[in-house]
Amino acid sequence: MPTSNGFDTSAAPTGLELLLADREITQLLHAYCRHFDRNEPADVVALFTPDAVVDYGPDAPTTSSAAELQSSMARGLREVFAATSHHVTNVEINFIDAATATVESSLHAWHRYHGDAPDGWLWGRYLHTVVTTPDGWRISHLQLLSAGTIDFHRDHMHPLGRR
Amino acid sequence: MPTSNGFDTSAAPTGLELLLADREITQLLHAYCRHFDRNEPADVVALFTPDAVVDYGPDAPTTSSAAELQSSMARGLREVFAATSHHVTNVEINFIDAATATVESSLHAWHRYHGDAPDGWLWGRYLHTVVTTPDGWRISHLQLLSAGTIDFHRDHMHPLGRR
Amino acid sequence: MPTSNGFDTSAAPTGLELLLADREITQLLHAYCRHFDRNEPADVVALFTPDAVVDYGPDAPTTSSAAELQSSMARGLREVFAATSHHVTNVEINFIDAATATVESSLHAWHRYHGDAPDGWLWGRYLHTVVTTPDGWRISHLQLLSAGTIDFHRDHMHPLGRR
Repeated sequence: MPTSNGFDTSAAPTGLELLLADREITQLLHAYCRHFDRNEPADVVALFTPDAVVDYGPDAPTTSSAAELQSSMARGLREVFAATSHHVTNVEINFIDAATATVESSLHAWHRYHGDAPDGWLWGRYLHTVVTTPDGWRISHLQLLSAGTIDFHRDHMHPLGRR
Repeated sequence: MPTSNGFDTSAAPTGLELLLADREITQLLHAYCRHFDRNEPADVVALFTPDAVVDYGPDAPTTSSAAELQSSMARGLREVFAATSHHVTNVEINFIDAATATVESSLHAWHRYHGDAPDGWLWGRYLHTVVTTPDGWRISHLQLLSAGTIDFHRDHMHPLGRR
Repeated sequence: MPTSNGFDTSAAPTGLELLLADREITQLLHAYCRHFDRNEPADVVALFTPDAVVDYGPDAPTTSSAAELQSSMARGLREVFAATSHHVTNVEINFIDAATATVESSLHAWHRYHGDAPDGWLWGRYLHTVVTTPDGWRISHLQLLSAGTIDFHRDHMHPLGRR
């Protein structure tokens, strides 16, 4: 979308602009994990757009507003988990244009539950769409895929898509 | 290797050039994991040079051509694994010159096997050599070292070199 | 702290300078893991300032000199561990000024002990303060927090601060 001065603000970033956007988007994923593991649902939700679509899998309702997300996340963080640790690696960022990127990453997550359940393990993938806002990059879409689990509290997950 | 215009194309990159090369090389490692875990051996092999030397350890033959690599990888992905998840961290890239780098990284890999075998765990290190090609950075050498395993399908691995 | 030429050397870095400092600091964390897992305590300690304060938790004495750190680390690496693997992710670097940054990261660490003890698992967080020195960035403060452990050799750890 070339502007009146001829500068194409819709093009995917390159060079230094690309690397600085990479940094901000990667920090967004890290902030998500940090706040999740500290049981700070309001801070997690603040990383999403108000109408973000969040799909953790078929055993949980897909949310499409910050209010729904916060309600379900706050309940899970309080009632299900005694402790969690989310480790994000293998971050691959693909810019659609200067204001939108899709992000794939890998997740190793460990969960300790309230009560006597054994610890739950998840190895999977996050699929994010992120967009620029006046407050910086925010998550507009999140889907979680599973490569495999052990003693996880959800029986059904979106599969990784292994052939 | 100074060229006729005096520009030294053999020097290791610095500044912005260094960081952009870092990004491409890191993405190469991530693409390897993504395609491996999705059972896409042809896509994995496309990340290597045609004569790449790949050494997963003494229990597997070292391959030195894309055809050998694809054959052994396709068989393993199909016959041994029901699911895998490869998580690469601690990436350290050292440029030899503008077209060659050695890369050390850490690997946490989880494996689910066909049949009744318990899940296999590996904590180790990847040693890569990567080179530029007309198609971008490609892997010319890969060796896998092991810090330790649990119920892994290979009994003998190259050791990490702990003193 | 503007200098006589008006250049503010105390300001946090931006742009390319920020990204290059990010790279050096991240490599410092990776070098720590590499040398630790290879049982190279002198090389680990060389990554710290001479008066670095290192606090691995209430079950270990906090050290405040390189000599103390090396003594306790060399003993642990030799007497406690048969093998370890430290995987650092989720690195978030916040610059205080051009010469100082605080760093939060996540740690997945696996430990194999001498003797018959089962393997020990730790999921936690590193809190680093790093400073520039004539030799590059060095760690001046390190504190380890735990999200959770399984069969770890330490019973008491600084908690993550989950609410």
